[in-house]
Amino acid sequence: MPGNTFGQAFTLTTFGESHGPAMGAIVDGCPPGLELSEADLQIDLDRRKPGSSKYTTQRREDDKVEILSGVFEGKTTGTTIGLLIHNTDQRSRDYSKIKDVFRPAHADFSYQQKYGIRDYRGGGRASARETTMRVAAAGIAKKYLKEKYNTTIEGYLAQIGHIVPEVIDLSLVNENPFFCPDPKVLDEIAQFIDQLRADGDSIGAKIEVLVRNMHVGLGEPVFGKLDADLAGAMMGINAVKGVAIGDGFDVVTQRGSEHRDEMDRAGFRSNSAGGTVGGISTGQDLVCSIALKPTSSITKSGDTLNKEGETVQISTTGRHDPCVGIRATPIAEAMVALVLMDHCLRDRAQNHDVERKSLFDE
Amino acid sequence: MPGNTFGQAFTLTTFGESHGPAMGAIVDGCPPGLELSEADLQIDLDRRKPGSSKYTTQRREDDKVEILSGVFEGKTTGTTIGLLIHNTDQRSRDYSKIKDVFRPAHADFSYQQKYGIRDYRGGGRASARETTMRVAAAGIAKKYLKEKYNTTIEGYLAQIGHIVPEVIDLSLVNENPFFCPDPKVLDEIAQFIDQLRADGDSIGAKIEVLVRNMHVGLGEPVFGKLDADLAGAMMGINAVKGVAIGDGFDVVTQRGSEHRDEMDRAGFRSNSAGGTVGGISTGQDLVCSIALKPTSSITKSGDTLNKEGETVQISTTGRHDPCVGIRATPIAEAMVALVLMDHCLRDRAQNHDVERKSLFDE
Amino acid sequence: MPGNTFGQAFTLTTFGESHGPAMGAIVDGCPPGLELSEADLQIDLDRRKPGSSKYTTQRREDDKVEILSGVFEGKTTGTTIGLLIHNTDQRSRDYSKIKDVFRPAHADFSYQQKYGIRDYRGGGRASARETTMRVAAAGIAKKYLKEKYNTTIEGYLAQIGHIVPEVIDLSLVNENPFFCPDPKVLDEIAQFIDQLRADGDSIGAKIEVLVRNMHVGLGEPVFGKLDADLAGAMMGINAVKGVAIGDGFDVVTQRGSEHRDEMDRAGFRSNSAGGTVGGISTGQDLVCSIALKPTSSITKSGDTLNKEGETVQISTTGRHDPCVGIRATPIAEAMVALVLMDHCLRDRAQNHDVERKSLFDE
Amino acid sequence: MPGNTFGQAFTLTTFGESHGPAMGAIVDGCPPGLELSEADLQIDLDRRKPGSSKYTTQRREDDKVEILSGVFEGKTTGTTIGLLIHNTDQRSRDYSKIKDVFRPAHADFSYQQKYGIRDYRGGGRASARETTMRVAAAGIAKKYLKEKYNTTIEGYLAQIGHIVPEVIDLSLVNENPFFCPDPKVLDEIAQFIDQLRADGDSIGAKIEVLVRNMHVGLGEPVFGKLDADLAGAMMGINAVKGVAIGDGFDVVTQRGSEHRDEMDRAGFRSNSAGGTVGGISTGQDLVCSIALKPTSSITKSGDTLNKEGETVQISTTGRHDPCVGIRATPIAEAMVALVLMDHCLRDRAQNHDVERKSLFDE
Repeated sequence: MPGNTFGQAFTLTTFGESHGPAMGAIVDGCPPGLELSEADLQIDLDRRKPGSSKYTTQRREDDKVEILSGVFEGKTTGTTIGLLIHNTDQRSRDYSKIKDVFRPAHADFSYQQKYGIRDYRGGGRASARETTMRVAAAGIAKKYLKEKYNTTIEGYLAQIGHIVPEVIDLSLVNENPFFCPDPKVLDEIAQFIDQLRADGDSIGAKIEVLVRNMHVGLGEPVFGKLDADLAGAMMGINAVKGVAIGDGFDVVTQRGSEHRDEMDRAGFRSNSAGGTVGGISTGQDLVCSIALKPTSSITKSGDTLNKEGETVQISTTGRHDPCVGIRATPIAEAMVALVLMDHCLRDRAQNHDVERKSLFDE
Repeated sequence: MPGNTFGQAFTLTTFGESHGPAMGAIVDGCPPGLELSEADLQIDLDRRKPGSSKYTTQRREDDKVEILSGVFEGKTTGTTIGLLIHNTDQRSRDYSKIKDVFRPAHADFSYQQKYGIRDYRGGGRASARETTMRVAAAGIAKKYLKEKYNTTIEGYLAQIGHIVPEVIDLSLVNENPFFCPDPKVLDEIAQFIDQLRADGDSIGAKIEVLVRNMHVGLGEPVFGKLDADLAGAMMGINAVKGVAIGDGFDVVTQRGSEHRDEMDRAGFRSNSAGGTVGGISTGQDLVCSIALKPTSSITKSGDTLNKEGETVQISTTGRHDPCVGIRATPIAEAMVALVLMDHCLRDRAQNHDVERKSLFDE
Repeated sequence: MPGNTFGQAFTLTTFGESHGPAMGAIVDGCPPGLELSEADLQIDLDRRKPGSSKYTTQRREDDKVEILSGVFEGKTTGTTIGLLIHNTDQRSRDYSKIKDVFRPAHADFSYQQKYGIRDYRGGGRASARETTMRVAAAGIAKKYLKEKYNTTIEGYLAQIGHIVPEVIDLSLVNENPFFCPDPKVLDEIAQFIDQLRADGDSIGAKIEVLVRNMHVGLGEPVFGKLDADLAGAMMGINAVKGVAIGDGFDVVTQRGSEHRDEMDRAGFRSNSAGGTVGGISTGQDLVCSIALKPTSSITKSGDTLNKEGETVQISTTGRHDPCVGIRATPIAEAMVALVLMDHCLRDRAQNHDVERKSLFDE
Repeated sequence: MPGNTFGQAFTLTTFGESHGPAMGAIVDGCPPGLELSEADLQIDLDRRKPGSSKYTTQRREDDKVEILSGVFEGKTTGTTIGLLIHNTDQRSRDYSKIKDVFRPAHADFSYQQKYGIRDYRGGGRASARETTMRVAAAGIAKKYLKEKYNTTIEGYLAQIGHIVPEVIDLSLVNENPFFCPDPKVLDEIAQFIDQLRADGDSIGAKIEVLVRNMHVGLGEPVFGKLDADLAGAMMGINAVKGVAIGDGFDVVTQRGSEHRDEMDRAGFRSNSAGGTVGGISTGQDLVCSIALKPTSSITKSGDTLNKEGETVQISTTGRHDPCVGIRATPIAEAMVALVLMDHCLRDRAQNHDVERKSLFDE
């Protein structure tokens, strides 16, 4: 119940604060016999890690993950997998400026109200650093889904501020610091971020995740819908304020005859649904997008309260991404992977004996 | 795990198909001593029920709920509450047209693929009729939240197709069949729906829910965030394709200095956050909006497959809402109520002893 | 969390009080395609039902179960199964004698303390009548386990007071009112119960459940052990005070060389383990026994307190079993069935691809 | 679902194998503001740790626990607590003798069957070494329960083989290596264990746990009963084969008039119930006992199978306790503490507003 375990059949439980000694995770339910090494998990950790370009936070972390249990002679044993990443650059600094002040749009105020106490160093448990363990754990899910079903999960920047990249080539995504699929806008984004830094300000972003070779039949009626679990997973990423499946908010102005994805023997003719109908996957590509708010740590001064209830001015200095949305790409992929893995296992618990034949011509 | 129980401390489990004999629910975790009668639950059931205007489905159901356990001498006992609604108008009809055909944008295809069998009568378990029990159960939560914290939960139509009502007066919402807070657009909506009926087509909608007198400190870090649970709850409503908290997708183009809700002794100066920061409620009003796709049951003909894998034409006749979004208003309120109630109880399990004092001037 | 849902992959949630209008249940996770009718569930309900012999309570209930959802054209659809049994003999009576008095060894005192309110009619939610729904739901599990794995689950009276039946023939169990596998002691039991009735007293009992054709590999390490889940399930049956697997408390005086079940190609040479080692089933027969306390409703007078805190004398009249243990036999089988079904589904969620070959000669 | 998280409101998730690099745990739901240091957790870890006397395994582990998150400036923050213990004496040895052989009464066979793979080094995840993290985590629960409710949880050896200590003084328990409350039998036990070592054999034991100053009203009806959760928790301890609450299996021969705990203004006159009636705590002392099977690792030779299905002789050498029951005392206390803590939080989630007044004279 205390909100720190994700999933039901394939589960992730995590610990760790931004400026504590280490981040850790426990993964349960992984099928036995999967070949798994730390290198498998390092791929996405390296994609996510801070300090990898001048456009993101300058905190330097190696983010080297250790597998402490659950893998024996290179294979998963079916028992609990333990993961650990040491924090190396939680540099000692002077917290006196933020210790007693509630930075607007940070979790400072809500944590203090809820618990009557908070670890103010670097955001504590509310820091996006917590997502390292989601990315590490999802590496297991991604590997399994790829090997077993050939499922691929690819995220990319769909919008940053007013700039809307075209989805030209997803293979470009890992070749630039913005996870951007459009080479034409790279310079524009770089200049925009430089300008934001100069302004002491930040910007929001939209990230999209595309899943190909989707397993059909994932999701459960009523409260265990695939899209519902995806929405919960995605909204639970730091800074996310909106989640859409398929056409998302565009459906408000669509007519039924326009929205529905008609079918023939060649397959679905369109994908407004974004991969799920009735909360269950159809085999269409899964398409999920999220809106991330602008980084709240900015140097531009603003008003707020301190713990004594006095109005004070705040300006957050330090090592911050001007757009947290950029680095959210591997995190968004991770959450999709965790949901799909969980639902694959849940589905076969119940429907192990159902023979599923495609109605479409191959 | 099988996705049919909602919540952790205050839970709802339901059964029932559209054309089966009855819908039922089990509610657990309700605090003892709450005065509760069937009339309390009937209020929102009547708001939701079909056949109440010519703009919604013409199926006629009384939706009279019975409380079968958990209430004694007019008060909840703290033990399990059982609820039942008999289906009265599941009229016997000829299903031969849809029995073997997958209606596009319906759950027909995904259910058949998942389970290898489906109850095709009226959508079976995938029917929006299932939401009766969510509305009934949420009546308990709404009553408790109102009595204990003075919290109110109000939904309204925020958009239907191209028509965007102004939020003039929420007290108007229950006085028109569209849950519309703007008297100026009522005629326009009525004509639009008549036109859709004439066209054999349907339209999407956007519903917004506003919660006032929010309890501060609800939600848990990481995977139990209040907004994450809300997003999961809302996306799990039939036909929902997008969920937004506060400014939602508008944050993509916002700057940090614009988005953050600055504070002084008078309180928050704005509400871009929509009531949660770091996944925990701040005490600001909670604002949540959802996008609902157009009704998929339309008479306009379209292509699809039948069970034999042949391409066929389909036209769905029968008693359907041209805009399922309209009647989703009390359902959206219900899901918000269930999430808030669950988190109130979860919060006090852990934080029972934390003294919470407002920093703001009253 | 509120303790009213059993299982994780195959789940049971129930409602209903002894003297309320009906008992109900919701079963989730049942695999689709299982042939299922009300008659299937009635078998064990009839074995459990009160009033079937003069040795049990004289309350008369038909206990006719209705399936309200989840079965279509005679087969399970994979969606939620709803069950209902109307209470017919909750005869109106004078509760003034027990209304304000805490009957010793009843749940009166603990419910009143916990909730500050209680439904005193017939024990309310604490009544053993609640177990009807466990028995009904377990009928589904029993049928599936038998059809799929040929697993059989048979309970019997292992001891009542000083009388210890010999396990002569389990086929006799359903042919006498005591679920007794030993024809030689039937008269002695009957006389013993008559004597207890004359004394206004009651007696404890021990019930054993034997599972044959056990699936190997059920159970999970650490907190999801098969025997742990069985122990929780069995201790949760009304009046149970002890649970044993295999040799149970006899292991305290056993040596390791005596306790261990040695193996050769013919199989295990003994079954001290009772079917599980390390919390995971070995394929040996599962053997589980429970101790049930004597019925607390007795006419023999005793001291207790009333709600005002005054010491009063209490003598419980009414329709009560002199030995609740007897009728617990089908209930004990039911709980074993629910645990095994749940673990079968959980096991295949994770271990679907593991090939399991017997090492033993067939 | 994968069986590796314990509790619902106060939860424990663990990782680690006997011969892996470290054991770890994640504790969620701890109320904020509790003073907590590693020394608090070390107390019971030291009581449990191996190598502390010649009567237990000679493996030497410091079992020094580190708190990696969730505590800030000496107090719990309400967020996730991470714990780690490095394994230091997982000495490299020759596993060739046990690698392909299923030691009788070990988890070797059942793990191999379930997963098709196993970590054979020192029992892997099935090792009792896993219980370190239960003991560490329970230190938090014990501290909270003591500070908040003055609840104490004390375990002791109730029987070892034929030797039955008298409960003379619980303060003696920590002053001898057997957790024995009776000074008169210490020599006898020591000699018995020496004899078992000489015989290459082992013995079972019975451990009892006594809880004083029990909170009233803990536990939930039907499937969340306090005694049911205790039974599940206790049966989940390695080697446990039986669990009893209060009079346990003795109730089989008790009459109702003898078993019931009568009450007057001075309180309950007896404690046959062992602290719970109807699954809910009465405020009486909680009394729970468990039977532990003899250590399965013995040098005495026995027959078994190897992976090829051949019958072979096995004799387990190495560092093993002749009676695993002895060191189970702090583990049994730990599981009781975890259950009580979880139910305290669960109870106040729902029943926060119920005023509970004792009916007894103080």
